Amino acid sequence: MTEVNQRDALPYGADEATIRATEELKTVFGARDALFVFNGTAANVLGVSLMLSPYEAVICAESSHLNVDECGATERILGNKLLTIATDDGKLTPELVRSRLTGRGDEHRAQAKVVQIAQVTELGTCYSLDEIARLSELCRAEGLYLYVDGARLANAAAYLGCELGDLAANVDALSFGGTKNGAVAGEAVILMRDEFRTSAPYLRKQQMQLGSKMRFAAAQFSALLEDKLWLRNAEQANAMAARLAAGISTIPSIKLRWPVQSNAVFVCLSPEHIAELQRDWTAYVWDETENVVRWMTAFDTTEEDVDTFLAAIRACCAK
Amino acid sequence: MTEVNQRDALPYGADEATIRATEELKTVFGARDALFVFNGTAANVLGVSLMLSPYEAVICAESSHLNVDECGATERILGNKLLTIATDDGKLTPELVRSRLTGRGDEHRAQAKVVQIAQVTELGTCYSLDEIARLSELCRAEGLYLYVDGARLANAAAYLGCELGDLAANVDALSFGGTKNGAVAGEAVILMRDEFRTSAPYLRKQQMQLGSKMRFAAAQFSALLEDKLWLRNAEQANAMAARLAAGISTIPSIKLRWPVQSNAVFVCLSPEHIAELQRDWTAYVWDETENVVRWMTAFDTTEEDVDTFLAAIRACCAK
Amino acid sequence: MTEVNQRDALPYGADEATIRATEELKTVFGARDALFVFNGTAANVLGVSLMLSPYEAVICAESSHLNVDECGATERILGNKLLTIATDDGKLTPELVRSRLTGRGDEHRAQAKVVQIAQVTELGTCYSLDEIARLSELCRAEGLYLYVDGARLANAAAYLGCELGDLAANVDALSFGGTKNGAVAGEAVILMRDEFRTSAPYLRKQQMQLGSKMRFAAAQFSALLEDKLWLRNAEQANAMAARLAAGISTIPSIKLRWPVQSNAVFVCLSPEHIAELQRDWTAYVWDETENVVRWMTAFDTTEEDVDTFLAAIRACCAK
Amino acid sequence: MTEVNQRDALPYGADEATIRATEELKTVFGARDALFVFNGTAANVLGVSLMLSPYEAVICAESSHLNVDECGATERILGNKLLTIATDDGKLTPELVRSRLTGRGDEHRAQAKVVQIAQVTELGTCYSLDEIARLSELCRAEGLYLYVDGARLANAAAYLGCELGDLAANVDALSFGGTKNGAVAGEAVILMRDEFRTSAPYLRKQQMQLGSKMRFAAAQFSALLEDKLWLRNAEQANAMAARLAAGISTIPSIKLRWPVQSNAVFVCLSPEHIAELQRDWTAYVWDETENVVRWMTAFDTTEEDVDTFLAAIRACCAK
Repeated sequence: MTEVNQRDALPYGADEATIRATEELKTVFGARDALFVFNGTAANVLGVSLMLSPYEAVICAESSHLNVDECGATERILGNKLLTIATDDGKLTPELVRSRLTGRGDEHRAQAKVVQIAQVTELGTCYSLDEIARLSELCRAEGLYLYVDGARLANAAAYLGCELGDLAANVDALSFGGTKNGAVAGEAVILMRDEFRTSAPYLRKQQMQLGSKMRFAAAQFSALLEDKLWLRNAEQANAMAARLAAGISTIPSIKLRWPVQSNAVFVCLSPEHIAELQRDWTAYVWDETENVVRWMTAFDTTEEDVDTFLAAIRACCAK
Repeated sequence: MTEVNQRDALPYGADEATIRATEELKTVFGARDALFVFNGTAANVLGVSLMLSPYEAVICAESSHLNVDECGATERILGNKLLTIATDDGKLTPELVRSRLTGRGDEHRAQAKVVQIAQVTELGTCYSLDEIARLSELCRAEGLYLYVDGARLANAAAYLGCELGDLAANVDALSFGGTKNGAVAGEAVILMRDEFRTSAPYLRKQQMQLGSKMRFAAAQFSALLEDKLWLRNAEQANAMAARLAAGISTIPSIKLRWPVQSNAVFVCLSPEHIAELQRDWTAYVWDETENVVRWMTAFDTTEEDVDTFLAAIRACCAK
Repeated sequence: MTEVNQRDALPYGADEATIRATEELKTVFGARDALFVFNGTAANVLGVSLMLSPYEAVICAESSHLNVDECGATERILGNKLLTIATDDGKLTPELVRSRLTGRGDEHRAQAKVVQIAQVTELGTCYSLDEIARLSELCRAEGLYLYVDGARLANAAAYLGCELGDLAANVDALSFGGTKNGAVAGEAVILMRDEFRTSAPYLRKQQMQLGSKMRFAAAQFSALLEDKLWLRNAEQANAMAARLAAGISTIPSIKLRWPVQSNAVFVCLSPEHIAELQRDWTAYVWDETENVVRWMTAFDTTEEDVDTFLAAIRACCAK
Repeated sequence: MTEVNQRDALPYGADEATIRATEELKTVFGARDALFVFNGTAANVLGVSLMLSPYEAVICAESSHLNVDECGATERILGNKLLTIATDDGKLTPELVRSRLTGRGDEHRAQAKVVQIAQVTELGTCYSLDEIARLSELCRAEGLYLYVDGARLANAAAYLGCELGDLAANVDALSFGGTKNGAVAGEAVILMRDEFRTSAPYLRKQQMQLGSKMRFAAAQFSALLEDKLWLRNAEQANAMAARLAAGISTIPSIKLRWPVQSNAVFVCLSPEHIAELQRDWTAYVWDETENVVRWMTAFDTTEEDVDTFLAAIRACCAK
C-alpha cells in the first residue's frame, strides 16, 4: 500500500495496480473477471446479484453469513428471498438442496435460482472438492447457479491442500476474502462466467462498493498472491486452531462442537465457565441456548498465544 | 355493486359508499381505521409495512402465506427479512417466537419487530382467543407488534363462535378477507392503532392498491357486514368442511392431516388415489413428499356437493 | 360480471373467461400475451419491470403519471431510476430523448433502457402514429424499449381514428385501460414480445396484482371489446370534451391550456373563478402556480351535462 | 494507519482508534455521533436513509452527485424518489426548494422530506453560511430535514475561512469526506440529531459499510483532524485551483464556466482543443454538448504542476 501511494493514479480502478491485481486473480482462479469490494457482506450481495431476477431466490444454509450476519442486506439491497435449510454442520448437500426445489413454475412461489455455500462454512467446516462437485452437478441439472462465499477461502485451500483454482472449478462465482487473511480491508468477487461481466461494474457501483482509490485494495491482493502469502497466513491460522483444538480435547469439561477444519474452534462449555473466560478473553457466544462459544485464530496468532490461552481455559475449567 | 354503479361518485375512496363501509368496519372491529386493498397478498404486505423500519424483520410460521405463497413480495416490495419458524400445525406459540428473539441489539442481525400469524392458519387450524392473548402479551413485553392475516377471519369467528371484534382485541393490525368469503375482490386492512394512520394511505397507493372506483370494493364489505352475511357464509363453508371430514373419517385408506377447524380439509392418501381423484376433481397437492392434498369448501358449497364428492372418494379408495 | 358469477371457476386466471378475454386482446393488439392488473399504476410498474435490470433507468416526461402520480411506486417497487424530461405538452420527441442518452457505458450512471410515453398524455394531448413511429425508430437504433401508458388508449384511438392495434404497432409493451373507459376496475398489460412472457406472471404476482377471481376483470374487457364498446365510450367522452372546449373558446376570461385531443380539458382562469366554481363542481387543480384546472368528461357524460356546466362557467366568469 | 496495525484490536469499530476518532469528530462538529463508511456514495445514501419513510422523497439539484453519479443507488438501495431541480450553479435556494413543495398531503405524490445540498457543490461553487442558514430556516418551517454532502467539505471551510463546525450549525446530518482530502478511503457521516442514532448502526451494516477493521479508516480521520491537516490539504488544493483559474483568465480562447470557489476548475473550450489536451492530460468532460471540461487540483498539487499544465494549455490554444 505504501508503494502505490507514492504516485498519482487514475481513479475508480483504472490504475495499473488494480489492473495487475485483477489479472493475477484471473490467472490464479481461471476466472473471466475479478472485482474488488470493501467487505464480505458486499461480496456476497454483489455475487448473488449477478445471478438473480426479481422473483428468484437463493438457497442457503440457515447458519449462513448471508442469512444471519448481514442485517438482512440481501432482502433490502436486492429484494430477493432466501430459502434457508437447517443443517448439522453448516454444509448443504444435493439432497438438502433438492428438498427446497418445490413449487417450480408456480407463479405464487419465489423461484430458486442460486445455491449459496460458504467455504469454509460459518461453523468452521470444509466441503471436500468432491462435495462441491456433486452440488455443482445438481445445479447444472436443475438450471441453478452455484455461488461460494470465500471470506475464508484461503483457510479451506490450506486445509484441503489444494490450489485456489481448484475451489473455483465447478462454481459460477465466488468471493476471495482479504480481510480475514491479513489485509486491511477488501474482498474480491471472482466471476467464472462471461455473462456476469456486463452488469458487474454497474451493480458494484450501485451497491456502493466502488472506491476511487481502488489501487489500495488491489495492492493488498497482489501482496497476498505473491509467493502465496495467503497460504502461509492461512496455514499458520489453521495450525494454531488445530493446536488449540488438540489442547481442548484433553480438558474434560469442555468439548468441541464441530470438527476443526480451519481457523475456527467451536466449543460447548458451561455458562459459568463462559462468563469467567469472557472477563479476560474475547470470545463470541455463538449460541446462547446451547452454550456454544467460537474462538478464532489468525495469521498472526502464535504458539505462545495458544498455549497461554489453553492454560487460562484449564485454570478456569478446574474450578 | 349494482347499486353503487347507478350514480356518479368521487374517486379514490372519497365516495359515500367507501366512507360508510369504513365506518362500519371500524365499529365492528373497534378499530382506528380501515383501508381496502385488492387481494390477500397486498393486505399482508401493507399491514406489516406499517410496522417496520428497513432493518427490522417479521417472525412468521414457515407455512405462512406471507412466506410461501406471495412470490417473495415482502422481501421485494418492503425489503424486510422474514424470520421463519417450523411448526406442527401452522400456529406460533410464545415459546416458538422467543426462540427467534436472538441477536437483539446486534447491528449484524435484522431486528425482529413484528409477529405475524394467520387466523385461520394456512393449515386450516384456529388459534383460540386465549392463545392469541398469550402471543399478544409476549409482544407487549418484548416491544413487538402483532399482525393477523385474516384472509379467512370469518371462518375463524364462525368456528370459535365469537365476534369479529374479539379477534382484533389484542392485535395491532389485521386483515379481513372478502374474496374467500363471497366477495368479487377485495380485502380490508384494519388498523387498531392511531400511529399507523398517517402512513397507511401513502403506502397503499405506493403499493399499487388504491382503486379509483373504491366504492365497488366498499359496497361488498357493507353487504358482508349487513345482517352478518359474512357469518352465514362462513358457517356454511365450515359446516360443509366438517361434513366432508366426518365422511372421510369412515374411509380407512385416507386420513385427516390436521384437525378441521374451518373450511379446509387436509388429507393424506396414496399417490395413486391422488392421481385418480385429480382426473375429475380439482384439489391442491399441498405437499408432494408427504402426499397431502387440500380440499376447500366455500360459502356456496352444498350438502349434495359434499356427498357426491365423498362418494367419489369412496369409489376411488375402494380400488 | 353478473354472467361469470353464475358458476364455479378455476382461480387465479385459469378460468375460461380470463382465457377468452386474453385471446381477444392478443388478437386486437397483435400481441404475444396480455395480463390483467388492478389499476393504472400497477400496469405501468409491471410494464416497465419486464424491461429493466437493476442498474437501468426509464426516460419519461416530467409530467408523466409514472413520475408524478404514483407516490414513487417505480422507485420503491422496482428500485429503478426515472430520467425525467421537461416538455411543453407532455410529449417526448426523439430529440428530447436523445438529450438524456448521456453517460452510457459509464458505471457511475444509471443506464437508460426504457422510453415511457403516455397515449393520451397526462395533458390530454395525443401522439400521431408517425410521432410514435419515430420514437420507436430511435429506440431500435439505441437499444431501448418503448413502453406506452395506455390508461386512456381508447380515447387516443377515437381521436386518431385508428385501431387499437395501430397504437401497438411500434411498441414493446403497453397498457390498455379499462377503469377510465367504463369498467369497474382493471387494466390490461399487453406484451408485444415473447421475451417478456416468462417473467410476467411472477412479477405480476409479486407486485400483488394477481386476483384469485380474475374472471371478473376479464369479463369487463370482453364486454369492452365486443362490438367495440370501448370505441363508443371513448367517442362519447371525446365529443363531450370537444363540446366543452368549443363552449369555453367563446368565454373571454378563460382560455384552453393545451389543445383538446381526448376527454380532458385544461384551462387557465383566475384563482377567484377557480374558487367559485369549486363550490359546486369538482375540478382538479392541476397547477396552483399557473392556475390551471383540469376537467374530465366520461363515457356517460351527456350534452346536457356539458351545457349546464358551461352555463355555470359563463355565469361565474361574468362576475 | 501503520500505527494502528501494530497491535490486535476489537473488530467492527469497537476498537480504541475508532472510538477516539469518533469523539474527535463529535467535538469538531458539535455532533451527536459520527460513523465511518467506505465512500462518498455510501455516505450520501446512509445520510438520507436516516431521515426517510418509504413514501418520502429527497429534494436535490439536478447536478447533484446523489442524482447523477451514484448509478441510481438511492432509488435502488433506499427505494426513495429524488425530486430534482435545475440550477444555474449547482446551488439550491429557498425559492427553488419551495417550487418542489407541491402535492403535500396528497397520497398520489411522494412526500418531500429531505433537502439535500453539496458543500462544495458538484460545480465547484460554495454556499455562504448565510445561504445555508436560510435553507435551514425553510426546512424548519416546512418540516424538512437538511442533509449536506460534504465530500469536499474541507475545501468549503478553507474557501469560506470558517470552522468545520460552522458548516454543521444549521443542518441535520452531513458527510465529511476523507478520500478527496488525502485519505486512502473513508468518509464520515456526522449526525447532528440524537434521533438518528438508533437506526444508524443497523442501516450502515445493512448498506454494507461496516468494516471489521474500522480502525484503519478511523486512524486516517484522526490524522486529518490533528493540527488541522485537513485544512492545510484543502488550502493547498484551493490555492492551486485559484492559480490555474488566474492563468486561464489570460487565455482568450478558453473561459471559466463557473466561479472557482474550491479545488475544481470548469472551463469551456473548443472540442478540438479538448481532444488535443486529452492526449497528454487527464480531464473529465463534464458536458459534451456544451464542451465543458473539469480539472481538479489536489492536496499534493504543486505550483510547478499548475504552471506546466498552463503552459500546455497555452500552447494548445495557440494552435
